[in-house]
Amino acid sequence: MDVFEMDRGFMRMAIEEAKKAEEIGEVPIGAVIVKDGEVIARAHNLRETSQNAVTHAELSAIQDACQEIGSWRLEETTLYVTLEPCPMCAGAILQSRIPRVVYGARDPKGGCVDSLYRLLNDPRFNHECEVAEGVLGDECGAMLTNFFRSLREKKKEQKKAMRKVE
Amino acid sequence: MDVFEMDRGFMRMAIEEAKKAEEIGEVPIGAVIVKDGEVIARAHNLRETSQNAVTHAELSAIQDACQEIGSWRLEETTLYVTLEPCPMCAGAILQSRIPRVVYGARDPKGGCVDSLYRLLNDPRFNHECEVAEGVLGDECGAMLTNFFRSLREKKKEQKKAMRKVE
Repeated sequence: MDVFEMDRGFMRMAIEEAKKAEEIGEVPIGAVIVKDGEVIARAHNLRETSQNAVTHAELSAIQDACQEIGSWRLEETTLYVTLEPCPMCAGAILQSRIPRVVYGARDPKGGCVDSLYRLLNDPRFNHECEVAEGVLGDECGAMLTNFFRSLREKKKEQKKAMRKVE
Repeated sequence: MDVFEMDRGFMRMAIEEAKKAEEIGEVPIGAVIVKDGEVIARAHNLRETSQNAVTHAELSAIQDACQEIGSWRLEETTLYVTLEPCPMCAGAILQSRIPRVVYGARDPKGGCVDSLYRLLNDPRFNHECEVAEGVLGDECGAMLTNFFRSLREKKKEQKKAMRKVE
């Protein structure tokens, strides 16, 4: 199995995580962390359920991986995430010294790996990452587009229903 | 009590938190979060103790404050922290919508509020903060300088002792 095939396989797992978020009404973003070809952590966005601002998929996966390994240094790991990380999650990737990050879709409004900043490739920090983007990117992006479209439609229907009641 | 006096009072509490970190051999950084004049969360750096890369003072305080309030939105709060936040913590401040951040010493090597980036004041993100820096800054900075100096001295002594054994 070549690296591209392997990356797609682990990104599929991250997409599965994202779908778990969607099922409970959360924005569908998922992440997995892999070491020596094995998944050591997987998580999905839980912000609304937890009412905890930091429960993004990546940050939760990083915490679980640290616990799994017993170290704050996640050396020789790869993080797979369906959406380009935000500043908090990009920062957590630097803090945990993850050497390789693979993401699906770009986030032009808040992404800090390629879109607004390139936080994972700034030689002034004490860590830099190898980054691969666009792995199953269309699928990862479509999941989010569909989620927000469906959310808007639900809100419209609710408004209509409210008007009928009034 | 004017705002400067109030800020110094809460920064003293953040320094107390930092000292708790120092007592257990952690880099002395502390944070408190205040709402309506009351402290709703306080935390210190615990990275070595927890072996969890994300247990910075600010990130832990943000999580505790979310739990205290029961919401991921920390509206009408002020975060006090002894050192300029890193990218992860600056990102967590944005994610939790904290409106005001007061910090002590600048971190020229990794600070992302003023030093390397100005992440809390980028209109492209969906949140911006009011920032005050330098509150008890000399004291906050000296605490870190002394910590690292003492660490270097301990290492030198250990090396000497090792040489004697050899």
